[in-house]
Amino acid sequence: MTLIVVKFGGTSMGSPERIRHAAEKVIALHKQGHQVAVVVSAISGETDRLVNLTKAMADDPDPREYAAAITTGEQISTALLAIYLISRGYQARSFNAAQIKILTDANYKSARIQHIETEALTNCFNEKIIPVIAGFQGIDPTGSITALGRGGSDTTAVAIAAALKADECQIFTDVDGVYTCDPRIVPEAKRLARITFDEMLELASLGAKVLQKRSVEFAGKYKVKLRVLSSFAEGNGTLITFEDSSMEQPLVSGIAFNRSEAKLSIRGVPDIPGIAAKIIGPISDAAIDIDMIIQNGSADGTTDLTFTVNREDYLRAFDIVEQIALELKAKEVRGDQKIAKISLVGVGMRSHAGIASKMFDILGKEGIHIQLISTSEIKISVVIDEKYLELAVRALHSGFNLESLETEEFDPIIIPNI
Amino acid sequence: MTLIVVKFGGTSMGSPERIRHAAEKVIALHKQGHQVAVVVSAISGETDRLVNLTKAMADDPDPREYAAAITTGEQISTALLAIYLISRGYQARSFNAAQIKILTDANYKSARIQHIETEALTNCFNEKIIPVIAGFQGIDPTGSITALGRGGSDTTAVAIAAALKADECQIFTDVDGVYTCDPRIVPEAKRLARITFDEMLELASLGAKVLQKRSVEFAGKYKVKLRVLSSFAEGNGTLITFEDSSMEQPLVSGIAFNRSEAKLSIRGVPDIPGIAAKIIGPISDAAIDIDMIIQNGSADGTTDLTFTVNREDYLRAFDIVEQIALELKAKEVRGDQKIAKISLVGVGMRSHAGIASKMFDILGKEGIHIQLISTSEIKISVVIDEKYLELAVRALHSGFNLESLETEEFDPIIIPNI
Repeated sequence: MTLIVVKFGGTSMGSPERIRHAAEKVIALHKQGHQVAVVVSAISGETDRLVNLTKAMADDPDPREYAAAITTGEQISTALLAIYLISRGYQARSFNAAQIKILTDANYKSARIQHIETEALTNCFNEKIIPVIAGFQGIDPTGSITALGRGGSDTTAVAIAAALKADECQIFTDVDGVYTCDPRIVPEAKRLARITFDEMLELASLGAKVLQKRSVEFAGKYKVKLRVLSSFAEGNGTLITFEDSSMEQPLVSGIAFNRSEAKLSIRGVPDIPGIAAKIIGPISDAAIDIDMIIQNGSADGTTDLTFTVNREDYLRAFDIVEQIALELKAKEVRGDQKIAKISLVGVGMRSHAGIASKMFDILGKEGIHIQLISTSEIKISVVIDEKYLELAVRALHSGFNLESLETEEFDPIIIPNI
Repeated sequence: MTLIVVKFGGTSMGSPERIRHAAEKVIALHKQGHQVAVVVSAISGETDRLVNLTKAMADDPDPREYAAAITTGEQISTALLAIYLISRGYQARSFNAAQIKILTDANYKSARIQHIETEALTNCFNEKIIPVIAGFQGIDPTGSITALGRGGSDTTAVAIAAALKADECQIFTDVDGVYTCDPRIVPEAKRLARITFDEMLELASLGAKVLQKRSVEFAGKYKVKLRVLSSFAEGNGTLITFEDSSMEQPLVSGIAFNRSEAKLSIRGVPDIPGIAAKIIGPISDAAIDIDMIIQNGSADGTTDLTFTVNREDYLRAFDIVEQIALELKAKEVRGDQKIAKISLVGVGMRSHAGIASKMFDILGKEGIHIQLISTSEIKISVVIDEKYLELAVRALHSGFNLESLETEEFDPIIIPNI
């Protein structure tokens, strides 16, 4: 017998009709003879409403109480889905984190799952009851409610799948899989039948908002087979799989991009050991996340340092850097909010050094100036002027021939097409 | 040290401003040196919203899942109130029923409290933390969430007060106490400084919507001193107290009324033993609540039976009675939806038979025909034509001189006037 954990996100729970539709997918799997555990998010908009209620009470709500308030949306969703399943003649039962015992640390607003008791769930399976579990929430060792951070329901689903040793964890969302690129920019973008965890992790952290990054990490750590598929359309979605060395890997699996960053440069600072820490330290002290950091030494004993931050932190970061520049007697500080970051991702890159030069060549032929470059084992990122974003992405998609990527399906595929 | 349980209803939690105002009352009591436990309802309108969501999923939602959904509003309220208390520099902590362990039976939609663990609450008091407890909810022996029925937060407050052996349980609502009559009908109505439990119980069941009836029963059973007072106005409210035989009791403490009933009569049925059960049985089988039942025998060996039901059940009840009338070969069935019930309530009545005749006399002088009469130890109820309701109530209020009722205050009074 196959055990499948299915997870429905906020848009899949967006209205009574959609909840019914999600429930029908659960019923289809159940009727195929599978054991199904369901994890649900709050109805779309509900968590924002709850966050706003807490902010109306205090500018900086107490974390424990904030978590207690904002996790109620998932409890509503579990009950609504269970109500429909029961009305259709199936046995179902809602569970919140306390009822299952999803134990986390006490980091209330962004807790990490430490242990999940499986007894309540296996009892359900033995009695042919479909358990419907609240995502996004846990309890700390004292029984206080914790929240797993935005998008945390994906993590709940993966953790439940790991705890139950499920055969597959299916994440139903509003897209029908992971694409070679955002189809809104590149209409020829192709759905990938599979992608490796490392690739998915890079894509998730690069801003492809299909899965919460932590859930992918969790799936990788506990070897949970993940599949992303659409609540609204038929199809097999994308299976996120462990790398199979016997398979021919495509060199590049996808192109990710974002326009949410801004760039800051501090030029002409003395090129002495520890200078980078002097500049970056105060930024991270201010709780500003830094993405790329590039340092280039000059011949005159000074150095230039450039880094990128979220655009919403740009003004705060600029003020801090100007202060540092004064102290370090730097030549100048420059900033640019009109940038875009484009990344090629693919495990095949590891063994093919030619990918980077091909990428630069394609961009060069389009007359696009590359401002920053950063690489990892399975990724190359460049920062360019924001106005060239679409042009660059389309040129790369076509230059690497992604529209004709082979995307054969895995077998067996367990999909609740209804 | 005094221990006080305070409860805020839905209108007291109706907006961020109102929640802050409620919290300031808690702070005032806390600063006076009292130990305070707070019980809260859902924000007004929230429970209705949740009920509607469940009804959108199924006409008759599964009771366990219904309870899980509709009890989330109270959890939000506890967190919001705690957030504000903490932002004001006080220690506070929200609790749901599972965290306290408010144990109930498994009657999910209308559960009865069986036991409350006090450990979490006494720990709070020892650490000078103000506990904020979700009303209306409990958990059954298996850990499933239960709902106490509409108005159940009052019962939670009384049960918490009983478990903690609190000195007083203060119910903050949108009226500033219990009145001799509804001030919208009788402007001269007077707030009662105190009322006995028996009287309050009669008033609650007669439709004076100040307190949920079950909470009054609970308070009577466990000898909890209850006080009803306004969230929005200053004042000492009404203390609901145990009868003190040394006190002079007023003969009549208040006049209650309702227009929510309808009357059905079946005339000319054979006057044989068991006939009443034959008529009333099918009505209660249809889950229709019956209030008054009056039977009068006639000289010709037949009898007439009249009873009252909620107006919303009238049509259903009428159909059932017509069917019975056919079977029993009754002479006729009559119904009237335009009735009103008026009740005089007062423990002083027990020893004064003259109250009833005085009541009938007052009504007679106004030319008001009495259709039905029913009495209990501390209550006389009459049913009259609805159109005379205001006239009758005002005549009785003035005839029994209720506007000049002595309403001296109890000492000591612990009120968080802010």
